[in-house]
Amino acid sequence: MNTYGTKFRLTTYGESHGPAVGAVIDGCPAGVAIDFDAIKAALARRRTGAPRQEEDEIEWLSGIKDGITLGTPIAFLVRNNNTRPEDYASIEHLFRPGHADYTYYMKYGVRDHRGGGRASARETLARVVAGSIALQLMPEVAITSSCQSSIASEVDTVGGTVSCTVTGIPAGIGEPIFGKLNAELASAMISIPSAIGFEMGAGFAATQMKGSEYIDRWGNGSGALTLTNHCGGIQGGISNGMPIEFRVAFHPVVTIPQPVECLHEDGHLETVNIGGRHDRYHIQRAAVVVESMAALCLINFLL
Amino acid sequence: MNTYGTKFRLTTYGESHGPAVGAVIDGCPAGVAIDFDAIKAALARRRTGAPRQEEDEIEWLSGIKDGITLGTPIAFLVRNNNTRPEDYASIEHLFRPGHADYTYYMKYGVRDHRGGGRASARETLARVVAGSIALQLMPEVAITSSCQSSIASEVDTVGGTVSCTVTGIPAGIGEPIFGKLNAELASAMISIPSAIGFEMGAGFAATQMKGSEYIDRWGNGSGALTLTNHCGGIQGGISNGMPIEFRVAFHPVVTIPQPVECLHEDGHLETVNIGGRHDRYHIQRAAVVVESMAALCLINFLL
Amino acid sequence: MNTYGTKFRLTTYGESHGPAVGAVIDGCPAGVAIDFDAIKAALARRRTGAPRQEEDEIEWLSGIKDGITLGTPIAFLVRNNNTRPEDYASIEHLFRPGHADYTYYMKYGVRDHRGGGRASARETLARVVAGSIALQLMPEVAITSSCQSSIASEVDTVGGTVSCTVTGIPAGIGEPIFGKLNAELASAMISIPSAIGFEMGAGFAATQMKGSEYIDRWGNGSGALTLTNHCGGIQGGISNGMPIEFRVAFHPVVTIPQPVECLHEDGHLETVNIGGRHDRYHIQRAAVVVESMAALCLINFLL
Amino acid sequence: MNTYGTKFRLTTYGESHGPAVGAVIDGCPAGVAIDFDAIKAALARRRTGAPRQEEDEIEWLSGIKDGITLGTPIAFLVRNNNTRPEDYASIEHLFRPGHADYTYYMKYGVRDHRGGGRASARETLARVVAGSIALQLMPEVAITSSCQSSIASEVDTVGGTVSCTVTGIPAGIGEPIFGKLNAELASAMISIPSAIGFEMGAGFAATQMKGSEYIDRWGNGSGALTLTNHCGGIQGGISNGMPIEFRVAFHPVVTIPQPVECLHEDGHLETVNIGGRHDRYHIQRAAVVVESMAALCLINFLL
Repeated sequence: MNTYGTKFRLTTYGESHGPAVGAVIDGCPAGVAIDFDAIKAALARRRTGAPRQEEDEIEWLSGIKDGITLGTPIAFLVRNNNTRPEDYASIEHLFRPGHADYTYYMKYGVRDHRGGGRASARETLARVVAGSIALQLMPEVAITSSCQSSIASEVDTVGGTVSCTVTGIPAGIGEPIFGKLNAELASAMISIPSAIGFEMGAGFAATQMKGSEYIDRWGNGSGALTLTNHCGGIQGGISNGMPIEFRVAFHPVVTIPQPVECLHEDGHLETVNIGGRHDRYHIQRAAVVVESMAALCLINFLL
Repeated sequence: MNTYGTKFRLTTYGESHGPAVGAVIDGCPAGVAIDFDAIKAALARRRTGAPRQEEDEIEWLSGIKDGITLGTPIAFLVRNNNTRPEDYASIEHLFRPGHADYTYYMKYGVRDHRGGGRASARETLARVVAGSIALQLMPEVAITSSCQSSIASEVDTVGGTVSCTVTGIPAGIGEPIFGKLNAELASAMISIPSAIGFEMGAGFAATQMKGSEYIDRWGNGSGALTLTNHCGGIQGGISNGMPIEFRVAFHPVVTIPQPVECLHEDGHLETVNIGGRHDRYHIQRAAVVVESMAALCLINFLL
Repeated sequence: MNTYGTKFRLTTYGESHGPAVGAVIDGCPAGVAIDFDAIKAALARRRTGAPRQEEDEIEWLSGIKDGITLGTPIAFLVRNNNTRPEDYASIEHLFRPGHADYTYYMKYGVRDHRGGGRASARETLARVVAGSIALQLMPEVAITSSCQSSIASEVDTVGGTVSCTVTGIPAGIGEPIFGKLNAELASAMISIPSAIGFEMGAGFAATQMKGSEYIDRWGNGSGALTLTNHCGGIQGGISNGMPIEFRVAFHPVVTIPQPVECLHEDGHLETVNIGGRHDRYHIQRAAVVVESMAALCLINFLL
Repeated sequence: MNTYGTKFRLTTYGESHGPAVGAVIDGCPAGVAIDFDAIKAALARRRTGAPRQEEDEIEWLSGIKDGITLGTPIAFLVRNNNTRPEDYASIEHLFRPGHADYTYYMKYGVRDHRGGGRASARETLARVVAGSIALQLMPEVAITSSCQSSIASEVDTVGGTVSCTVTGIPAGIGEPIFGKLNAELASAMISIPSAIGFEMGAGFAATQMKGSEYIDRWGNGSGALTLTNHCGGIQGGISNGMPIEFRVAFHPVVTIPQPVECLHEDGHLETVNIGGRHDRYHIQRAAVVVESMAALCLINFLL
């Protein structure tokens, strides 16, 4: 539901325009000195060019004493200071196209229409904080990413891809059948708002290769384990010690800077300006969430 | 680990060349008349052109009385009659390239080298049986698929994609943050042997679209909910009632009909013929597993 | 760890003398009007005669809009205003007898010594709030309890038992093997601080009965299902529709109003006054936690 | 449902008079040499004086090769050879008093009436096998028990208690709030057929003690940690290194050697001889299940 992980367990909460967003992290080992600056830096990356420039002041509620984790649940929250519910009054009874307005309504029968409520990029804030803490628990692991996006037009929005590489994961990590490391990465990534595709290593391109081309040849023992990394560092669900490489596809931002036809709760269509804007940093912001979810996924295998 | 699902819970077991493969299904509702012919038909599809033509005789051990489910765990097994352990004697201490031999060894320190042990296509048998039962519990749901593969050469192997469509899922199914229906489908699909990519709806192609192109316009109320289905029937992790559409990429079979260099446990390389063959039905067989995993994923949301 | 339940999932956090205690409730259905007065009344019962008379002002952070649940996580917190860390300076390096000081230290290697840190009666506050909400979701269910305790002396502490009766649970609730309703009640009750025993129906006294005395005879069809209720309303792990009856034993408060020998971290013993007091309401306060945990246990079967 | 544990995960199946009972153990570490004689010895204890003297021939299906665990799921089954369904024909539509016949029917709407179906002592066979394997993984741990029962009469049945002591568990094992070691032991024990009470250490007797009597004084550093063990070796949900001591109450066998009134599915009462017998070994057999469940509980904390 709103919990990720089994050992390092993140439970997030908060509507975009409610009092606060926050989370509880259960399972963080005791005795760890938290690097709060690293957390702030990750949050700053997450705000790059964002429409809502809030301070993201984290209030720590439990689990840390004198900067050191206690082993008990770490709770934190960030107030939503910059809420403007009046901006959303016009869409209270409308379902915007491309958004989750309709599906939330069909699931719950009630919804917080303001800013998408829970289905908002605001929710990823807690993931980035937790991901930063997770990464701090794995000093030997490095997670990097690069972005590709097409910036097409000033009056529209774009999507793109994030390519992510994880180094420092030893061989032998993962489960062989249903908790495969690649399968867990897949669900972690597709849980990110706007994610619409996932591939490991050679990915979809591998479907065009012959087996003799695809197979990663063993190295000669002095360098890397394999000469290529088409499998993305995971075989049979378990890491082989090579870099773990995967790519996540994001569809364009669905709040577009153009009038759109919305579906009213009573069934008629209504053309409304939903307040979108051209945004060239969408994928850059997604990248820090990709890295955060990768950290959250991996820490659950490494603890 | 070896369990899939929370409500309809499948636990599989069995090495490829051990005494048997089998499973326990927990959470199947009571009072359901099982269609054993449908199960046989699914297993027959799973064997299409398979190298190992076994009978797949299912022995039912519990949970069903007079053809009706009791609500208690359904256990079944299939004997491995056609095992030829001597075929694998030459690779007992070798790690084949592209296989999970090395990663299993790094994880467990011990392995059943015969036919991949647990990391074998044989393991999918239990998924297909359970998937068929799951589908029988959802009479209003239809799951279909189509295959694309490139049959390149008689002395090599190929990969391909399976496109899957699910109809009959009402709007409102799925969880909004971490148990998103699309994320659960992703992990279900990437858990299939050889799966290397997953995409919903427009998928990776959506990264090249403008927002105004990507957004699915609402229908006019008399036909489908939306005029297009780029999102693949899921928004914010929750179904919208449109067909659920996704695609799974499979890399080529890694047991290729050519001599390959294997890594010996002592570190040297050794060229061996690992017994592969050209196989034009690889993706067709994968398709039934895709459908089975889709059924297993969905029944956990619908029960 | 710090999460209770699978469907109605309570995650609590907070050290006794940290900034706050609080919780996240995941899985609460949408569209429910919360009775905040009922929650306040439960909290008032939980404070009966308590040493620390705080206001318990609940701050609601998410999941509720205009008094109605959204289906999204309900987060709330209560500030710890009345903290006096200086009261605990003398025991910073001591393990009090009977407390969890030593075991926390052995588990975590670090601890918040102030007021027991996490191992404090303060932690039950979140359970009572969540239990009250759970009970509101089951209008047909009534949970009542009675207390027995021996008030022995003005310079010592006492334990006692809480007998609890639940009516309104239909027949057929529970799981037959490992999620037995009685087993889940047992773990829910033994999770309460100071709980040291649990019994259903006739309980330990049943060990002295003959089978012919113990068996609950069927009623004649016009009154109750059975003439007696020695089984406590559960057979084979599943409710039979009779009242569910169980009893929880609580050992005496371990903070006694007498000097006690404490174990220093360096191994020597040190006699210290740990600030206990005679408390005749200990079991009354436990009773509201018993009822709350019963509600939390049951809602997970009924949702 | 039918799975116990999170790390060492036991899933049992099988109706008493179906083809077989069995289980899958997931999470057993690789490379362990199984002591099959120890398993047989545990099963022999479980059969002491049992009405149904079957061979309990275990068929191992997966997860073990050459006597060594592979790290993959261990599956095994035992055939039900000695089934006599005709013995149960007379009660096909009756609910015996004291049994789970009625509650299963209310839950599932269908049942296997033969020998209690799933609600049978036969089900504990798989627990004993798995418990023996769990114990083998903890060579430093010893689990012993003693039985108390009142053998009252040749024409009736009796209950009793099993007192269990576990040594070799280091300090610091357990979770502090909801996965308390004592709470997990409680649910493990109450999951055993006929269990009706559970207490740690001084248990219900502690409710009659003053705090100053109850508190376990620290030892002088040269002997045991504490001079008494009223808490049963667990404080705040976490072990303190002292022996873990608890007691389980079992109600009398409900299949009594006397005619009893049964409830017919159509509502009328019918007096039937349900085939019970005087059985002086009931509690001795329960004791091996108590020890097995203790092992299963503990291994999930120690792995």
